Amino acid sequence: MGPHVPAHAAFIPGHPIAGTEDSGPDAGFAELFDGRWAILTPLSPADEADVAKLRGFWEGMGANVDTMSVEHHDLVFAIVSHVPHLIAYNIVGTAADLEDVTQSEVIKYSASGFRDFTRIAASDPTMWRDIFLNNRDAVLEILGRFVEDLTALQRAIRWAEGDKLFELFTRTRAIRRGIIEQGQDTRRRISAAGRARDERLRAARIARAVIGVDQPAMRAQRKRA
Amino acid sequence: MGPHVPAHAAFIPGHPIAGTEDSGPDAGFAELFDGRWAILTPLSPADEADVAKLRGFWEGMGANVDTMSVEHHDLVFAIVSHVPHLIAYNIVGTAADLEDVTQSEVIKYSASGFRDFTRIAASDPTMWRDIFLNNRDAVLEILGRFVEDLTALQRAIRWAEGDKLFELFTRTRAIRRGIIEQGQDTRRRISAAGRARDERLRAARIARAVIGVDQPAMRAQRKRA
Repeated sequence: MGPHVPAHAAFIPGHPIAGTEDSGPDAGFAELFDGRWAILTPLSPADEADVAKLRGFWEGMGANVDTMSVEHHDLVFAIVSHVPHLIAYNIVGTAADLEDVTQSEVIKYSASGFRDFTRIAASDPTMWRDIFLNNRDAVLEILGRFVEDLTALQRAIRWAEGDKLFELFTRTRAIRRGIIEQGQDTRRRISAAGRARDERLRAARIARAVIGVDQPAMRAQRKRA
Repeated sequence: MGPHVPAHAAFIPGHPIAGTEDSGPDAGFAELFDGRWAILTPLSPADEADVAKLRGFWEGMGANVDTMSVEHHDLVFAIVSHVPHLIAYNIVGTAADLEDVTQSEVIKYSASGFRDFTRIAASDPTMWRDIFLNNRDAVLEILGRFVEDLTALQRAIRWAEGDKLFELFTRTRAIRRGIIEQGQDTRRRISAAGRARDERLRAARIARAVIGVDQPAMRAQRKRA
């Protein structure tokens, strides 16, 4: 990229962490970057004023901004994004190739777990091919560790070492809790009870706004806020 | 199980395919089984009248019912549920053990992909330990295929064989389409635009119900339906 940047321009690599499996302008919406992270990986020497300007751009879109080295970026995203995508693509491929389970059975019975993987495995093929080819070293490093850990689990299952399974399955819950606490999962399933309650509150709010009931209570609430 | 069933009782193994990562009575809601599948695996010899009674029970809860052999069930669920859970647990464990990426970075930057895996990896540890120990043969069979396929992908990345990656990434989209068409993914992300539209429609519906506007239009609509 470097040689193609004209002398008067500053090139600062970076990207947001946001989006869905859909691509193109139609997949966008106004709150897409709200509260999400944008990562900048300034090349040295980078002009701090230029970095500040780009930071301001992302913050204007509602994002939080972090900077890190290109190398660290590649390792972080190999684990939080690239390898997870690769194994999602892989398991959906393994499922499609089974002789004794039909594709229609896989589709019909796809429960939580596989279903989430199929969503990930429906991501843009061109973009993901290029990601794996461009972040090869970090992806192979994380993939090596993943397979090593998986082999240990496989062995634990074969030898019925339930304690080892239980220990891992308990440990992984802590990371999930951290993600929910930091509000990075906007897609968390809301319980039907919670949804029904939200619905009632919303209906009550609209009813109050339309027919003017409960105005004093609303004013009091506004004062408190 | 068999020896513990009293002579006057009929034992028909089975389970629904529904639920979230939450357990216990509080995790339930009235529509939990609506349009989902319940699988029965009658042991031979099974009394058809008993199976029909149990089928009626599940249908009464809104579920669709299928029957299959225990062996086929175990293979189907190893691919659509058990192995996906195992690899989700595994990648979250691999992430937690990295030396050069902190747990707080993993949590902060957890993008689509990893975030979904953490949700799955927060499932009940005791239940999942027992599932892996009880469905060992089918899980090991599917896991063997998964690792074989993953090794081929790893090799394609190492040797920059972009075509092989692209071919798989394209093929996996078909399965996703099938799942969406069959309505098995209730958790599909609704775009913000779609959400805003639903919200407006709901508000309009409530407003009409409360203050009685647009009654003729509503009656006409009801007649058409």
